[in-house]
Amino acid sequence: MKRAAIGIDIGGTNVKLGLVDERGRVLLRDTFRTEHARSRTEMLDKLASHIAVLAAEARTRGLRLSGVGIGAPGPIDVERGYVYFFPNIPGWKDTPLKKILEKRLRLPVFVDNDANAMALGESLFGAGRPSAGSGRAARNIIFLTLGTGVGGGLVIGGKLFHGSTFSAAEIGHMVVDPAGPLCACGNRGCIEAFVGNGYFVREVRSRLQKEKSILRRWVKEGKELTPKLVQEAAKQGDAFSKAQWKRTGERLGTFLAGLANLLNPERIVLGGGIALGGELVLAPVRAALKKKAFPIASRFVKVVPAVLGNDAGLVGAAALALSKRS
Amino acid sequence: MKRAAIGIDIGGTNVKLGLVDERGRVLLRDTFRTEHARSRTEMLDKLASHIAVLAAEARTRGLRLSGVGIGAPGPIDVERGYVYFFPNIPGWKDTPLKKILEKRLRLPVFVDNDANAMALGESLFGAGRPSAGSGRAARNIIFLTLGTGVGGGLVIGGKLFHGSTFSAAEIGHMVVDPAGPLCACGNRGCIEAFVGNGYFVREVRSRLQKEKSILRRWVKEGKELTPKLVQEAAKQGDAFSKAQWKRTGERLGTFLAGLANLLNPERIVLGGGIALGGELVLAPVRAALKKKAFPIASRFVKVVPAVLGNDAGLVGAAALALSKRS
Repeated sequence: MKRAAIGIDIGGTNVKLGLVDERGRVLLRDTFRTEHARSRTEMLDKLASHIAVLAAEARTRGLRLSGVGIGAPGPIDVERGYVYFFPNIPGWKDTPLKKILEKRLRLPVFVDNDANAMALGESLFGAGRPSAGSGRAARNIIFLTLGTGVGGGLVIGGKLFHGSTFSAAEIGHMVVDPAGPLCACGNRGCIEAFVGNGYFVREVRSRLQKEKSILRRWVKEGKELTPKLVQEAAKQGDAFSKAQWKRTGERLGTFLAGLANLLNPERIVLGGGIALGGELVLAPVRAALKKKAFPIASRFVKVVPAVLGNDAGLVGAAALALSKRS
Repeated sequence: MKRAAIGIDIGGTNVKLGLVDERGRVLLRDTFRTEHARSRTEMLDKLASHIAVLAAEARTRGLRLSGVGIGAPGPIDVERGYVYFFPNIPGWKDTPLKKILEKRLRLPVFVDNDANAMALGESLFGAGRPSAGSGRAARNIIFLTLGTGVGGGLVIGGKLFHGSTFSAAEIGHMVVDPAGPLCACGNRGCIEAFVGNGYFVREVRSRLQKEKSILRRWVKEGKELTPKLVQEAAKQGDAFSKAQWKRTGERLGTFLAGLANLLNPERIVLGGGIALGGELVLAPVRAALKKKAFPIASRFVKVVPAVLGNDAGLVGAAALALSKRS
């Protein structure tokens, strides 16, 4: 009997659900808007009813459900499946989510931070899979999401590493330049304050005042200045935009060289907005990493883009359940 | 029958050997000068004969030997016990040390990097032990040696973490300031280039030109400028020296805040020259860590000095054997 799991990605805007098979393929999708659950009780009711539909579908298809995996933002006690709070759900505080849902659903429930779930998903079903080159799945992976913030997850020895109080992998908040820009966390010069979307866009805007670029015209025409727009400009040969990606890649690569010296991973997986730059950012990242990490670490590590895209949260959440023996 | 192991710490100047019991106490010591082994063959012969003496002593005392643990500098394939080179032993290259010694000794042999061995020793028998406060042994530990260089070891889930090619825990070579001083590794602004002994002494010497301190007199009197001397000056109330320790502690604490955000450990153990500063350096380290790491990580982590001192290498090497089930 083939296995499957239900993955749930609770985001600030949408809750995405999916029936995911043991190879990480999404068989069926479902979604509702987070704001439509106006209280904790409503959210729990909605989750339970949507899960019940997917579970029934799994039975119809002859799939054995390994359980339900939930990825959620914010701090979570992973062992107890205890969620301290959801930023966007009123009244949601200190909830034993695993216990409540397991009682209602009679299914094993696993809860983890959303970035951790994505890291596990990429590890098992995405960028961590055996490559043509090595033929072995990567055991040690650093996963970074380069979005508004910089988050991540650590896979160590094939398993998610949570640290002593489940707060490990706050990769965005390591100081890389004590004289750097102020970070949302209150420190100066965290890597997030250099390569997060916000800083990236602010830096582009500030440099645009003085430098020539097609972006000036595009912005005047009303286009929103985003990493994606800077990527498009670079692809059209805009020197300013190409330089911006290069600078960002070098900063990120210097940072990753330090992480490679520390953790000696097989893969570093980059997801999120900045990673959309593709080779524009990957090439300088790889060059800086090669130059600045010890050869024994840099020769071995592959820097690769995330491959699960918009499904990363969903597939990653399902992976929380699929990766448990059952 | 009580267990024991033979620990061997191969250093650039001396090879130290010891019979170590299962509680990490050194029962018997032995040593020879590294330079007295003028070739690889001589080193292997010396190791074998010194080990035989300690093994005989273990039998006399009714101890069951778990094996021989060897800590050595430089890169090592830990699984195969394969040593690529020793900086100070002529002709030593690419040696299957484990295989050779196991054949000669008929004892299990474990080889690891010296800083890793020290980290394991502190974890099992030193600063990682259950404290009065928690009653549990620490499972996740970052160990730093602040000497000429900055090295370290990572204990994750109670075990040494080696990374994918056994080069993990090169903690000294993470860039903390891209405009910082040139590091021996070729990069600018590695943490080693800020808090290693060399930089510490250079910085003191340069500042001494312009500032008042008792150190000026001491140096004129012929005393060697070392971290220990700056420590003595600070203890005597020398404001310059106290400020120097504070600055160093703040730098180190900012760095460790990032590591705490990344790895969320229970303990950070500091050994080596700079750590000799005791509370002079620990207090600003702790303050910076508390200020700059996320509360969920900083509330939980304890920054403590290493406790094994000069025996760290020896006890740590023995721990390599004692920590294996046998």
